[in-house]
Amino acid sequence: MHVMIIGAAGMIGRKLAGHLAANPHLGGRDIGLLSLIDIARPEPPAGFKGEATCLAADLAAPGAAAACAAKRPDIIFHLAAVVSGEAEADFEKGYRTNLDATRALFEAVRAEGQKAPYRPRLVFASSIAVFGAPFPDVIGDDFLAAPLTSYGTQKAIAELLLADYSRRGFLEGIGLRLPTICIRPGRPNKAASGFFSNILREPLAGQEAVLPVGEDVRHWHASPRAAIGFLVRAATIDPELLGARRSLTMPGLSATVGEQIEALRRVAGDKAVRLIRRVPDPAIAAIVAGWPRAFDARRALSLGFSAESSFDEIIRAHIEDELGGRIGA
Amino acid sequence: MHVMIIGAAGMIGRKLAGHLAANPHLGGRDIGLLSLIDIARPEPPAGFKGEATCLAADLAAPGAAAACAAKRPDIIFHLAAVVSGEAEADFEKGYRTNLDATRALFEAVRAEGQKAPYRPRLVFASSIAVFGAPFPDVIGDDFLAAPLTSYGTQKAIAELLLADYSRRGFLEGIGLRLPTICIRPGRPNKAASGFFSNILREPLAGQEAVLPVGEDVRHWHASPRAAIGFLVRAATIDPELLGARRSLTMPGLSATVGEQIEALRRVAGDKAVRLIRRVPDPAIAAIVAGWPRAFDARRALSLGFSAESSFDEIIRAHIEDELGGRIGA
Repeated sequence: MHVMIIGAAGMIGRKLAGHLAANPHLGGRDIGLLSLIDIARPEPPAGFKGEATCLAADLAAPGAAAACAAKRPDIIFHLAAVVSGEAEADFEKGYRTNLDATRALFEAVRAEGQKAPYRPRLVFASSIAVFGAPFPDVIGDDFLAAPLTSYGTQKAIAELLLADYSRRGFLEGIGLRLPTICIRPGRPNKAASGFFSNILREPLAGQEAVLPVGEDVRHWHASPRAAIGFLVRAATIDPELLGARRSLTMPGLSATVGEQIEALRRVAGDKAVRLIRRVPDPAIAAIVAGWPRAFDARRALSLGFSAESSFDEIIRAHIEDELGGRIGA
Repeated sequence: MHVMIIGAAGMIGRKLAGHLAANPHLGGRDIGLLSLIDIARPEPPAGFKGEATCLAADLAAPGAAAACAAKRPDIIFHLAAVVSGEAEADFEKGYRTNLDATRALFEAVRAEGQKAPYRPRLVFASSIAVFGAPFPDVIGDDFLAAPLTSYGTQKAIAELLLADYSRRGFLEGIGLRLPTICIRPGRPNKAASGFFSNILREPLAGQEAVLPVGEDVRHWHASPRAAIGFLVRAATIDPELLGARRSLTMPGLSATVGEQIEALRRVAGDKAVRLIRRVPDPAIAAIVAGWPRAFDARRALSLGFSAESSFDEIIRAHIEDELGGRIGA
């Protein structure tokens, strides 16, 4: 079968390509062809026995979506997006990349199906940013999408389109509202959410990290490993089980910063915890105060999606997947 | 002030234009100019003392939205849409008219504001079609929009855009999810919802009407008069009271067909009720079974929107507004 990843050069895209290269089958079918697409040409994944094509393309550019659909992949993972901060800073770019390009992809798939029967599985990476305060302490599957960012608006619109195109039979869509990914590998960045990962990843590598908020801040997390599991599950689930509501809030772990730190202490000791410097930042605290704290992801759990149940697990996954099993320092 | 109605030739658009012609002020300001726009040139409203311009234009055509915004109306009522059945039958036309034209209007307003400060009030007619089964018996203000039609999808997307454009300060948007309008004036049509009006309007005019469903069918109604009241309230409400959630489920009356018929009996007697012929139609019954039955429209009620509290009232409003106060037959 032919699997296409759009947004294959991002953190999740690379991990997904690597996972599929190492486990080249989905739903009992072998993956013979992997198409990896991103704005910059993605690297081919190591060790893949089948054919991999790696392509630089801007999905929002005229003809780009049609060229993707013309290859008639069996499964399309659509992970490409400009992130929240950028979509907020550049209104037009956000709508162009996150809405217009996504709609162009759906339209290209529909047009392809009008030439000859074609109805690919389309797995769309959405986000808990579709939700906006005020919300209850625990957000259920029936809660409204009322985003407070342009990014969240674009993701919520794409979810609506995905459901309508699926209902019409143009594609077999499933949208996944990913939790904040923690521990995000790589260097600290300026995202307001960065500290959730920084305060674990940096001490595990023997480096200092800055904590800008109080220990009582609660948020919704899943590991990169769990995210790959969500995508693989979405690619193979029986669509009959989904019904008309095609986007699912993914399971995750609701934890406070204090609980993160105690897990770090259990896994890596006091020495690691002492590397966290508390430098309160009221601006970041204000942003984070508007974020969801917990979900009751009942539908996704009943459909076989699963995430970590403790931060100890999340930290151990990071040590295994990113640090070769060894804590640094 | 300058008030523009896009979709001014429709049933609600005509009534709104007539109301504003007779009551030429909004929020304490006089209406000097009424711009009425629709696919077919709208009739100028009778008795308006100010200037009225009536224009045939397709908002989805290139340049049409920009031409509307260039007139810099203080208030824009955006009522134009292709209806549910047509949007379902013609996928491309529905998206073009209900999504692309609406987004073009919002974009034209934003572009106008980049030339010189401009932030009109934009009142958008949405619909309870943004909701799809399964739902609770009573739908609250926090319930998700999970439409089961392309029409509902397009309205839900427009609501998301309206909120984001408002949050960004490009316009002052407010979306109204209108109940099923009952008693809809005019001749019986083939809309699946038509019978809710037919079984009252036709007997009140001495004509037979067909009832295709059982008397226990429950639905959510408001009169044309109430709908005009919603639009006028939306045009004058303090936007600070709305917060980030810019679309409101309008109040209405949850009633069964049996309750409709008993109200008809009280107002117009057994003779009128005897004009209702029961001709069960399983296809219509199946469609209607997926429709919402009742809402708890708490937010809208607290913001001063109000509707009828009995079907007797709805019937009397029809007799006053459409029949010159006299029951026919």
